[in-house]
Amino acid sequence: MPIITLLTDFGLKDGYVGVMKGVIWSIAPQAQIADLSHEITPQNILQGALVLEHTSSYFPNGTIHLAVVDPGVGTLRRPVAAHMGKHIFVGPDNGLFSLVAARARSVAQPVHFYHLDQPQYWLPNISRVFHGRDIFAPTAAHLANGVALETLGTPIDDPVMLDPARPMPTLDGWLGQVIDTDAFGNLQTNLRSEHLAGLERLTVRLNHILIKGLVQAFGDRPSGELIALIDSAGYLSIAQVNGSAVQSLPAHVGDTVEIHGRPVA
Amino acid sequence: MPIITLLTDFGLKDGYVGVMKGVIWSIAPQAQIADLSHEITPQNILQGALVLEHTSSYFPNGTIHLAVVDPGVGTLRRPVAAHMGKHIFVGPDNGLFSLVAARARSVAQPVHFYHLDQPQYWLPNISRVFHGRDIFAPTAAHLANGVALETLGTPIDDPVMLDPARPMPTLDGWLGQVIDTDAFGNLQTNLRSEHLAGLERLTVRLNHILIKGLVQAFGDRPSGELIALIDSAGYLSIAQVNGSAVQSLPAHVGDTVEIHGRPVA
Amino acid sequence: MPIITLLTDFGLKDGYVGVMKGVIWSIAPQAQIADLSHEITPQNILQGALVLEHTSSYFPNGTIHLAVVDPGVGTLRRPVAAHMGKHIFVGPDNGLFSLVAARARSVAQPVHFYHLDQPQYWLPNISRVFHGRDIFAPTAAHLANGVALETLGTPIDDPVMLDPARPMPTLDGWLGQVIDTDAFGNLQTNLRSEHLAGLERLTVRLNHILIKGLVQAFGDRPSGELIALIDSAGYLSIAQVNGSAVQSLPAHVGDTVEIHGRPVA
Repeated sequence: MPIITLLTDFGLKDGYVGVMKGVIWSIAPQAQIADLSHEITPQNILQGALVLEHTSSYFPNGTIHLAVVDPGVGTLRRPVAAHMGKHIFVGPDNGLFSLVAARARSVAQPVHFYHLDQPQYWLPNISRVFHGRDIFAPTAAHLANGVALETLGTPIDDPVMLDPARPMPTLDGWLGQVIDTDAFGNLQTNLRSEHLAGLERLTVRLNHILIKGLVQAFGDRPSGELIALIDSAGYLSIAQVNGSAVQSLPAHVGDTVEIHGRPVA
Repeated sequence: MPIITLLTDFGLKDGYVGVMKGVIWSIAPQAQIADLSHEITPQNILQGALVLEHTSSYFPNGTIHLAVVDPGVGTLRRPVAAHMGKHIFVGPDNGLFSLVAARARSVAQPVHFYHLDQPQYWLPNISRVFHGRDIFAPTAAHLANGVALETLGTPIDDPVMLDPARPMPTLDGWLGQVIDTDAFGNLQTNLRSEHLAGLERLTVRLNHILIKGLVQAFGDRPSGELIALIDSAGYLSIAQVNGSAVQSLPAHVGDTVEIHGRPVA
Repeated sequence: MPIITLLTDFGLKDGYVGVMKGVIWSIAPQAQIADLSHEITPQNILQGALVLEHTSSYFPNGTIHLAVVDPGVGTLRRPVAAHMGKHIFVGPDNGLFSLVAARARSVAQPVHFYHLDQPQYWLPNISRVFHGRDIFAPTAAHLANGVALETLGTPIDDPVMLDPARPMPTLDGWLGQVIDTDAFGNLQTNLRSEHLAGLERLTVRLNHILIKGLVQAFGDRPSGELIALIDSAGYLSIAQVNGSAVQSLPAHVGDTVEIHGRPVA
């Protein structure tokens, strides 16, 4: 029986996540369920898309990723499911899966989206405020039971895609930005290790802060020092050793990050 | 093997919830466990009762709901278990299950409470501060193993029942109140869709705020607007589109909510 | 199949915990996983060690405890696993397991540490920032599959051990300290029930606060009163009935706690 993962902006206080598990296990009693995150900032689709991109690939082939960050629930936005690489994704058609889709396409993996339009696979009563419970959880459970995607929906070729800011090349490096912060207070940027590969004597500038060179590990510098390093998902990250960069710096999501260096000889 | 759900006010930091899972799996190794919430406000029995009422029915028949919001732990308050509808509930006798009981009785489902008084089904040493670990988790696990409720306790007919404030009819509508807030900052009231069914030209008043009409979905209005809608559990809720009503309004649990309208012609 | 528990300082927002579950289930698809805590204060090894000591023993024999509070990740600190009592522990060699080890030794249980030095049991690419994903999760999964500890590493006899402050005897009692606070705001001290066993007419002093006597249960005193009691792990704890001692007192981790009494006649 496949694994079902859950990612939402529901928080853990109100039982909404528990309800989805109850619905899933009512239909697919043996499904294994793993929580990816339920603390996505409310309505922050891009943040949900980033976490999905960083985490989903670590699950076995056949895993079903159920994701609900859904400010448009109950409006005309479509419910969708997508076959991407070896995984299936279920949730609202609002760009939540677009970073996973871009990654899959970049390595020539199949990407097939379906509009979920077969209400006989949903709960009997569909609210206009909680499709995670009424549409997406039943869909994920039926998929876990082996029902084919083609049975649950109709192929579409126009899913909503986010177009997040991309790093821009400069005369001596790259211009990127802070795209998220994690629970440690590390600042995640949209600059990847690939961008830095051909450069040496690197410096990283964020607002008034200049960091010289990359380190390989947090413990390479003394406590309290600001460092730049490649994080576990391959992105340039700015951190404070044994501290919180987001708390000690004046820095926010959206701030510009400059990389300067010179070409490796 | 039945599902066991967990609802507590323990938070997730200290490992108390993990301990209960260890105790359950020591007795019933194959039990499936789902967290409903561990972020009930400490000692807030009514809030726990509300979340149980909103969530428990979405689980399959036979599910065992273990709930611990228990300021009276170690005093004379009784440990109880209850058969209600197709589910079993385990926890302290302090009203935590009274909203589920009221709902079950309102649809003529059986409600049978038992005083847990058979210590041979508990852990060997019973603290006076953590019955979730010492009494309730072992009880839930034995129930999952098929031990009958009648074996674990003695029937009682006087469980503690909360009597939460009910909406009162007015000349042109209803007087209710805010009973909780969720992680999105939505204000949940004790007014249900049934109360509003016969009224049109609805207005909702909360403190100095007047909201005209109900919307069906969050996305029906622009970002930042205050809206009233029926939430996923059937209650009137006041929300801010893509925002937090509780943060943007001067509103608190217990505040009066007025519904005005005129009878449908 | 054994249970795997997880304890980290990762928080639940970023999906790091979900990634570890994905890695575990990719290798050991049937492993049961329980979260102990993911809200250890970042880099607070002692707090992680305390929660492990309080919680791990409630799991069945054979349980594998995967713990990652790891400020030295990617440096020379060793990855380790340890057989202690009937359980196995996996994580960084930084003292995280030293309280469990001390407890095991105090009751003459075996304690055997191994340096994890067999990369063929890890993920193919090892980052220097996320050994929880790359080394520890695969190790725990292989252990759950029945691979022997001796196969995964080399015995060592010099694991890092914390030496936390111990209570000191005084003329009429003990001098201890506050070592942690829990989600209820209770202040946990390093004084255990054993320290208090021979004393009567007890008073507890914390900064300017004097508490007379121990109570057995929170509900033994009226709401708002400060009380001292033995907590569910056997430690002296200072609490506020239906409130938060840490919020209502001027008290912090590290503050001195004095016990005064006189010998039982």
